[in-house]
Amino acid sequence: MNGAQALINTLVDGGVDVCFANPGTSEMHFVAALDTVPAMRGVLALFEGVATGAADGYARMAGKPAAVLLHLGPGLGNGLANLHNARRAGTPVVNVVGDHALYHKQYDAPLESDIDALAGAVSGWVRRTQRVEDVAADTRAAIAAASGPPGQVATLILPADVSWTSGAPNVANSHAEQGVARADVSEAVAAAAKALRSGDPGVLLIGGEATREPGLSAAARIAEATGAKLLCETFPTRLERGAGVPVVGRLGYLAEMATYQLGGAKHLVLAGAKSPVTFFAYPGKPSDLVPDGCQVHTLAGQSGPATDALIALADEVAPGTTAPLAPLNRPAAPTGALTAETAAAAIGALLPEHAIVVDESVTSSFFLPAATEGAPRHDWLTLTGGAIGYGLPAATGAAVAAPDRPVWCLQADGSAMYTISALWTHARESLDITTVIYNNSAYAILRMELERVGAETPGASNGPGPKASKLLDIGSPNLDFVAIATGMGVSATRATTAEELTAALARARSEPGPHLIDAVLTPMG
Amino acid sequence: MNGAQALINTLVDGGVDVCFANPGTSEMHFVAALDTVPAMRGVLALFEGVATGAADGYARMAGKPAAVLLHLGPGLGNGLANLHNARRAGTPVVNVVGDHALYHKQYDAPLESDIDALAGAVSGWVRRTQRVEDVAADTRAAIAAASGPPGQVATLILPADVSWTSGAPNVANSHAEQGVARADVSEAVAAAAKALRSGDPGVLLIGGEATREPGLSAAARIAEATGAKLLCETFPTRLERGAGVPVVGRLGYLAEMATYQLGGAKHLVLAGAKSPVTFFAYPGKPSDLVPDGCQVHTLAGQSGPATDALIALADEVAPGTTAPLAPLNRPAAPTGALTAETAAAAIGALLPEHAIVVDESVTSSFFLPAATEGAPRHDWLTLTGGAIGYGLPAATGAAVAAPDRPVWCLQADGSAMYTISALWTHARESLDITTVIYNNSAYAILRMELERVGAETPGASNGPGPKASKLLDIGSPNLDFVAIATGMGVSATRATTAEELTAALARARSEPGPHLIDAVLTPMG
Repeated sequence: MNGAQALINTLVDGGVDVCFANPGTSEMHFVAALDTVPAMRGVLALFEGVATGAADGYARMAGKPAAVLLHLGPGLGNGLANLHNARRAGTPVVNVVGDHALYHKQYDAPLESDIDALAGAVSGWVRRTQRVEDVAADTRAAIAAASGPPGQVATLILPADVSWTSGAPNVANSHAEQGVARADVSEAVAAAAKALRSGDPGVLLIGGEATREPGLSAAARIAEATGAKLLCETFPTRLERGAGVPVVGRLGYLAEMATYQLGGAKHLVLAGAKSPVTFFAYPGKPSDLVPDGCQVHTLAGQSGPATDALIALADEVAPGTTAPLAPLNRPAAPTGALTAETAAAAIGALLPEHAIVVDESVTSSFFLPAATEGAPRHDWLTLTGGAIGYGLPAATGAAVAAPDRPVWCLQADGSAMYTISALWTHARESLDITTVIYNNSAYAILRMELERVGAETPGASNGPGPKASKLLDIGSPNLDFVAIATGMGVSATRATTAEELTAALARARSEPGPHLIDAVLTPMG
Repeated sequence: MNGAQALINTLVDGGVDVCFANPGTSEMHFVAALDTVPAMRGVLALFEGVATGAADGYARMAGKPAAVLLHLGPGLGNGLANLHNARRAGTPVVNVVGDHALYHKQYDAPLESDIDALAGAVSGWVRRTQRVEDVAADTRAAIAAASGPPGQVATLILPADVSWTSGAPNVANSHAEQGVARADVSEAVAAAAKALRSGDPGVLLIGGEATREPGLSAAARIAEATGAKLLCETFPTRLERGAGVPVVGRLGYLAEMATYQLGGAKHLVLAGAKSPVTFFAYPGKPSDLVPDGCQVHTLAGQSGPATDALIALADEVAPGTTAPLAPLNRPAAPTGALTAETAAAAIGALLPEHAIVVDESVTSSFFLPAATEGAPRHDWLTLTGGAIGYGLPAATGAAVAAPDRPVWCLQADGSAMYTISALWTHARESLDITTVIYNNSAYAILRMELERVGAETPGASNGPGPKASKLLDIGSPNLDFVAIATGMGVSATRATTAEELTAALARARSEPGPHLIDAVLTPMG
């Protein structure tokens, strides 16, 4: 058995049976070995950022890592942005990066580069396998490191000669390393209980694993019994929501909104979330969102045992309380102009049961939470790390992980273009993904941010000057997403009114995907 | 004057007056400052890899750096692959990466990452500006570091608060740092002269700056007078060629070809080129291409004064010799099936005078050198670092640098998809670029490499098994580049015969671009 075969066998043995791949010459033995391991599914991406984003979306839904196969440093570079998002999501990813043969590295061939430096920037664990005898053990270690807790990106660098050399041991009887025992939470629970019972205004901020139903239910009971305000982090990894699930508001992206939400709190209890800070710095405004005089209590850290801790806290402070659940309550199908608001209503009116929503709608997202909170039960995946170009790839992975669930990808136009070739993989794998492009012909968030950071052009009386404005305008020329999607094999249609969007979503719901709807928005007054 | 204004003023003062940008919130003051400096042109890219590849193409033709503006670590990550190519090309690039405000970094906000580690992997020079007072001096240093010699990527990390703070000194009277004095080449010239006069078979391998006309002419005189074989590196940064320019063969990409070209040499003289090695390692084959018993003489290193050294050597060994020049000699317009061979003939038949050819045609490139060596004088830019996705972006930059010259971008289909959104910038800036997509529906080079590395699937009698084959096939679904280009505002047409390609090229030649021709190839028998 050669190294590549040992790698794939060990991956499958460890439950990792999907590999999102964009290989090159140094990975050809991995590719050839796919045919020797029937259980491993290879999914081709036309760009590495699609492969890494797919692995992120896959793991969020599957609860276990996929493998990624990348080609040398430049391939890893192309995949970094979505690995960054996976890192922020706490997603498990087994990231296999092929390298030149060990003896070839000394020659500084054209594709030679510092893979370790790049890998270190996004990975919690990095190892370069030096001998074919170590492939299986290193692969097992990578799976264990990726799986956590906490979940993280584990990068295994595999030299071409280690891949092609024979003599790897059989791995059929190997076992993954034991999981880490979870920490004792009793002291943190007691401190949080005391704070929330103090009678002072409190906020319970949840994140990480706690935005799944068990954590949400416990958190909602705590909030109900103690009067604490319940919020979740701005960009949750996977938020379970909809009819029958407790409602949780998300901390606002805008500092003004977050400051309002946290205003007056004397105690802030964190469960799976970090202490809140602004996304960016803004001149003259604080980065730390914790109000003056508010005490922060960490019930469980960002990757800690937040669910266990919340359940223990709920048993302590809310023993007889049940969590209030969202009722089924959809908005009416909207009519008239297609705006971010009517688009949200159309989505709320038609979102299928058990849908997975992959949300990279950016400035068009404002009306979505309210419009969908009473829709049938669904999962909501968000852009955890701020590195745009996540939506189309993550939808790819989510659809591979959950083939029986419809995926709706709500995608801003500018962000879509970073990893647009994901559409081709949607078509190739016949994935049930309906992509809605929010086409406003602008980097609308940057128009807003330009004002918010006070970057007005001297001499321009109203906002940015013409050169600055042009750099935020992506409508010249117009991006025709129907043509682009069709060119990659995805059936596509355009919607310019609320009725057209509703009709297009209804059609998409009735036929397995992939579909793309180019939703051309009318600016809101 | 704030830091952003000081940066742009200093760039323009240093001759850097084009910025390829894909900005985010932390770069908004840079964007706003564009309107205060009329001489700076901002060119928007929809993806960072387009911006960095454009900067590479720009500098190869302009002979001076452009600036790039990227957003934090993920933006730099997306730009790394083409910065890798620029690094291998020895291209000067002033790479400005916006960062969070200095005081904001402690909060580990979602987009925080190790920018320095990423920058270090591709840059010859990295500096993070700490105070607004230092912006102008740091920018001058970045320009000097980028410009060299040798040219390199110089990365200036600019925190948002340094960008927005007032108090930057006026830079109008500043001057760029002095260039480095070139090394004395007389000793190396004497050694090379002795070797080439020895009577033993010799090869002169040129690269770097020496593939421009002065170096080529000197090298051709040396070869003519001494009988040495003249070759240039496999992937030159900018090769001047065509009628009236000396002909130089390129060292083969395939090791078998390169071994044949270098076979029997007893002396190998390097001028601007590295000692030749294989691109990848292949089992059982040497990585070092220098024949046994051949002595290597470095007349000038990869980024050394190769032209001066070649001229000095020519004056020594070939004082009365003139360089043989390619005559004007185009192939006839081809007819029949559209193959890599007839496509090359069509390009040779119609290539406009003073064209810039950006070549990422990969496996379809085999027939191009012979078909175009007698075309009117032109420049040929190649994929120096092997990181695919270079063609469409580099064509963007070359067209911005030389608006009076037609750019022909010869682009493989698979590679095109990495940075396909460059087409939008072609349209937006009305660039005179004609893109020919070599559409063979495959990662054809990987089909070849899979065999070459011996990665046959066990049990499959003829080459790779079905799963491996599928990972190299990009024709399912078919990529319709006419639809994709049209969707980004580029006029496009399809050619399926040699006559159709010839007609489409003739039309493109007669109207300023951009154009795209989806050349659907018939496999060659």
